[in-house]
Amino acid sequence: MTELFRTPLLDTVRTPADIRTFSMEQLRQLADEVRLEVIEAVSHTGGHLGAGLGVVELTVGLHYVFNTPEDRLIWDVGHQAYPHKILTGRRDRIRTLRQGGGLSGFTKRDESHYDPFGAGHSSTSISAGLGMAVARSLDCRYNNIICVIGDGAMSAGQAYEAMNNAGSGSHRLIVILNDNDMSIAPPVGAMSNYLSRVVSSRSFRSIRHVAKGVVAHLPGPLERAARRADAYARGLISGGTLFEELGFYYVGPIDGHHLETLVPVLQNIRDGRETKSVLVHVVTQKGRGYKPAEQALDKYHGVSKFNVVTGTQAKPQVRAPDYTSVFAQALIGEAERDERVVAITAAMPAGTGLDRFARRFPTRCFDVGIAEQHAVTFAAGLACEGFKPFAAIYSTFLQRAYDQVVHDVALQRLPVRFVIDRAGLVGADGPTHHGLFDLVALCCLPGFVVMAPADEGELVHMVATAAAIDDRPCALRYPRGESTGTNILSKDTSILLAIGKGRVMCEGATVALLSLGTRLADCLVAADELTGRGLSTTVADARFAKPLDTDLIHRLATAHAVLVTVEEGAVGGFGAHVLHHLAKTGQCDRGLRVRTLTLPDAFLEHDTPMVQLETAGLTAPHIVNTVLAALGGEEGACSVLA
Amino acid sequence: MTELFRTPLLDTVRTPADIRTFSMEQLRQLADEVRLEVIEAVSHTGGHLGAGLGVVELTVGLHYVFNTPEDRLIWDVGHQAYPHKILTGRRDRIRTLRQGGGLSGFTKRDESHYDPFGAGHSSTSISAGLGMAVARSLDCRYNNIICVIGDGAMSAGQAYEAMNNAGSGSHRLIVILNDNDMSIAPPVGAMSNYLSRVVSSRSFRSIRHVAKGVVAHLPGPLERAARRADAYARGLISGGTLFEELGFYYVGPIDGHHLETLVPVLQNIRDGRETKSVLVHVVTQKGRGYKPAEQALDKYHGVSKFNVVTGTQAKPQVRAPDYTSVFAQALIGEAERDERVVAITAAMPAGTGLDRFARRFPTRCFDVGIAEQHAVTFAAGLACEGFKPFAAIYSTFLQRAYDQVVHDVALQRLPVRFVIDRAGLVGADGPTHHGLFDLVALCCLPGFVVMAPADEGELVHMVATAAAIDDRPCALRYPRGESTGTNILSKDTSILLAIGKGRVMCEGATVALLSLGTRLADCLVAADELTGRGLSTTVADARFAKPLDTDLIHRLATAHAVLVTVEEGAVGGFGAHVLHHLAKTGQCDRGLRVRTLTLPDAFLEHDTPMVQLETAGLTAPHIVNTVLAALGGEEGACSVLA
Repeated sequence: MTELFRTPLLDTVRTPADIRTFSMEQLRQLADEVRLEVIEAVSHTGGHLGAGLGVVELTVGLHYVFNTPEDRLIWDVGHQAYPHKILTGRRDRIRTLRQGGGLSGFTKRDESHYDPFGAGHSSTSISAGLGMAVARSLDCRYNNIICVIGDGAMSAGQAYEAMNNAGSGSHRLIVILNDNDMSIAPPVGAMSNYLSRVVSSRSFRSIRHVAKGVVAHLPGPLERAARRADAYARGLISGGTLFEELGFYYVGPIDGHHLETLVPVLQNIRDGRETKSVLVHVVTQKGRGYKPAEQALDKYHGVSKFNVVTGTQAKPQVRAPDYTSVFAQALIGEAERDERVVAITAAMPAGTGLDRFARRFPTRCFDVGIAEQHAVTFAAGLACEGFKPFAAIYSTFLQRAYDQVVHDVALQRLPVRFVIDRAGLVGADGPTHHGLFDLVALCCLPGFVVMAPADEGELVHMVATAAAIDDRPCALRYPRGESTGTNILSKDTSILLAIGKGRVMCEGATVALLSLGTRLADCLVAADELTGRGLSTTVADARFAKPLDTDLIHRLATAHAVLVTVEEGAVGGFGAHVLHHLAKTGQCDRGLRVRTLTLPDAFLEHDTPMVQLETAGLTAPHIVNTVLAALGGEEGACSVLA
Repeated sequence: MTELFRTPLLDTVRTPADIRTFSMEQLRQLADEVRLEVIEAVSHTGGHLGAGLGVVELTVGLHYVFNTPEDRLIWDVGHQAYPHKILTGRRDRIRTLRQGGGLSGFTKRDESHYDPFGAGHSSTSISAGLGMAVARSLDCRYNNIICVIGDGAMSAGQAYEAMNNAGSGSHRLIVILNDNDMSIAPPVGAMSNYLSRVVSSRSFRSIRHVAKGVVAHLPGPLERAARRADAYARGLISGGTLFEELGFYYVGPIDGHHLETLVPVLQNIRDGRETKSVLVHVVTQKGRGYKPAEQALDKYHGVSKFNVVTGTQAKPQVRAPDYTSVFAQALIGEAERDERVVAITAAMPAGTGLDRFARRFPTRCFDVGIAEQHAVTFAAGLACEGFKPFAAIYSTFLQRAYDQVVHDVALQRLPVRFVIDRAGLVGADGPTHHGLFDLVALCCLPGFVVMAPADEGELVHMVATAAAIDDRPCALRYPRGESTGTNILSKDTSILLAIGKGRVMCEGATVALLSLGTRLADCLVAADELTGRGLSTTVADARFAKPLDTDLIHRLATAHAVLVTVEEGAVGGFGAHVLHHLAKTGQCDRGLRVRTLTLPDAFLEHDTPMVQLETAGLTAPHIVNTVLAALGGEEGACSVLA
């Protein structure tokens, strides 16, 4: 095994400067060794494998040709940056990827000067790069700014907005379109079709093709040639009409694994002094160079730890179905009963569970690509015509469509159902992927119904309830990962919840815990502990963050000395609305000790979910301590405890 | 005057069905009369004039050719829909436009079956239309779906996302690109350049050109011809390569004021049975047919009441400079002192005041087009390179970039300064334009500084403070309209506010009013009233919604019987954070009567700002009543009042 992973040349590389004297042969060897290192490292840590393997040669070529970090190299999304991290002084920590205290799974400004812009969400690189290009112009500097963006990311509106802006200005940007015909799921959309046509209609441009008619090895001829002899240049760089119409010089398509082409093309572009922006269309293969990845349907997009020889991924111990599966199953049930149920995903069919729905109802499931804004308004259009759209979007990605949720859905009171997976802390993906703000952002919207199941049984009922709510928008949010495994799924999936009504899990007399969502389990543990300490505790599951169960809140506020709300969301969501209600109605005027447990005012780093919840202060012991602190140190505490 | 505005033909029209038997000559006359009616009506009401005048013929042509409302006609943005409203049963109320209880200034589903989708924000029409087209397919219906979208709106990412989705599918959509080379400000971006090239490189297509080689007056030939004889069709419908690459049939450019061309082209498209979507490129003139509008720089985009003969707009009585001007002036001052200050607008140079900044610093002001997502990440890129970007975006439009604010700015703690105009209630523009949610959405973000000036002097200090905050993001928000006129601008614009510190305006002993933003004036009036009733009142201006002035809050909470927070924002913002802090620190455990005044949980309809504030319950009498209610009816009230 060790023999297999010998990396003698890579062992000599500390920073990209070390590779800039390499021969072409050495670059090829370096690429091979980087690939081995990526495979070996990810086999231990898990993480994003396929994307990184696809850009090994591109990474080597870019760092060889460009003067990073002075030249800014921006990786869109950032999950393909493991080879980049290996080459930029982080190799010694590469086996800490996505572990607590270790390297982030994405690019990150805090982590390295070689990461000029942090990523995690897609399609931001061209915008950020253009900002840097404008700054360069204002500063009269001459560094290069290179954005590497995938074909999948090109379906997002922000990429187009940035292209539209960059293509009309004179702040030269180098955009590398990394076309692997695959983001997380197979690509969709007209842009993708267009790229396929371009690639299939012509063979790869060799360096001889690209530099034909211009003196090879001399700097900067490409763009000048293009301008000087337009007709000729069209032949030279044709195939990218769309990008040319948007004001870019188009170069490609180029084999992204062939360093002999890649390097001189990049050198040509680097040495150009035209002010027009350039788009280099590079074709790569996701999972390249590792057979199990190349052959897998998802190209090992995200993997667990795996056996390098067989490619077999370690199966995490599964104790209970994850919430995603429970949702998918429940929605299929609803769709079987009601043919107006349809589903929308923005490029996350597997992550949201809608791949299963799509297999069952292929004509009623719509993957619109990485295009959350469009996804939401598209769902609104479906709702206008009497359909029952379920838009399944991760909490963190729904932020992309906030205006559409407010303006196209809530304002028109259209019954779009938002199914918000990955709400709360997400573990190894870290701060770019936490679902912190959905409760805050949705609870303030007039007319919205906002639900959060405490367990898998509740989730099933909430899917049914969402299907039934047909006069206004609603949302249900649940965390990443396994369900509780405690609530055997009710066979009666037609149970509808009363809107805005919670449930009491156990009755006490002194302390009331009001939980929203899956923190309920910890509330129940805390209640046991408190009862053991002589503090008789009521636990209620709010079920709804909006509308609030004001009757329940009144009972809890009037019959207890302490009321603690608990939610896995930022300040401003469920607890805030409870506080507002209590204040408005004067229910805390007479000494109720109310406390709100929320996520802290911080972006928690990647780690295990358990550690993150601990750091956030949302586990049973924290709940107990909050209650004890509320009662302790106060004059009234003793009498209450007595 | 009345003679001038005779509309004998229009007088016979109740619904679009009435015009479908008209001759071409009658259609032309109808268009002329509709134009007169629009001018006459808007001269009384004020509103969006230029855009509507530009689409008079298009509106007549569309309703003549298509079977509205069965065919869905979706106006992007919706402010150009006055002619549409006149023709669809709302003529009798057209002089109530934008008045309380009257017609909305935008399309609105509640208002008419002829408005299948409400608008107000740009670039949503294709998404909504595609949703309806998919619904039609699922329902096996055959109605047409027509989206009319401006060239300005085409710079927004959502339009591209929707085109990308529509162009790859078989759900036939008709997109009318209304190219008037002008949205609110002159257009920017590569797409706009592209459209100009298309228009300037060829004369308008006449119907003879468009239908050349196909049997005119017979249905559905255009697309079939295009498919059958590709080379020929390229000549026929060339110029739209970009849209063709995105999967649309392109037809145009067509003179949008020439009904003799417009009508048969639309008929051809209507009768086509191809499943591919069509883009019709129509060129119109904003303000068409009304000389003062045609000649004005902004084409009378939005006007006050005006004299029809002279075009002179009624000047609103100005008592004090508006906040927008104060901001612009202050930012220019900052930029004079610090060359790293730059400014970004998303197609609103005049509305944000940045037009003045751009005149003074043309190379340091960036209008990126209707592209809020890009605007924010672009600003982040500038901040990465050490510049001090001020991104000036209306509250309601900043919703478009929420993910970028969270993910690209806050998470990376980049010092982007958000200048949020139109925060709070906006008056006649109504619910699509209120700035309700900015405090909610920003206060939950770790590391953000969120400010709201109480008056114009504070605004100046906050601009200076924002320029100085260079280690994290910040935002300042202020309402539409005039400043208080009471705070003469300090000549010393270099005063920096202490971050997270409020100020006490007057000291009392029983009641504390804690105001954020411009509601302070009403708090002071309320305090006078309360003091007059024997309730000695403290008024404090929080200045910062984040970080909170916890010392100030402690003083207010401990030294008063009642604490009322006041803000012009939705629940979940400033007041919520104050409540959380009070709860966390146990400061309302002992009988503090805390109340929070916020905007109500509703989308308030268009009206005067005064009426809206009244409805919202945020005026001085409401504050007084809230305090009295908090004290009254309780055992403790008498002793406090005594």
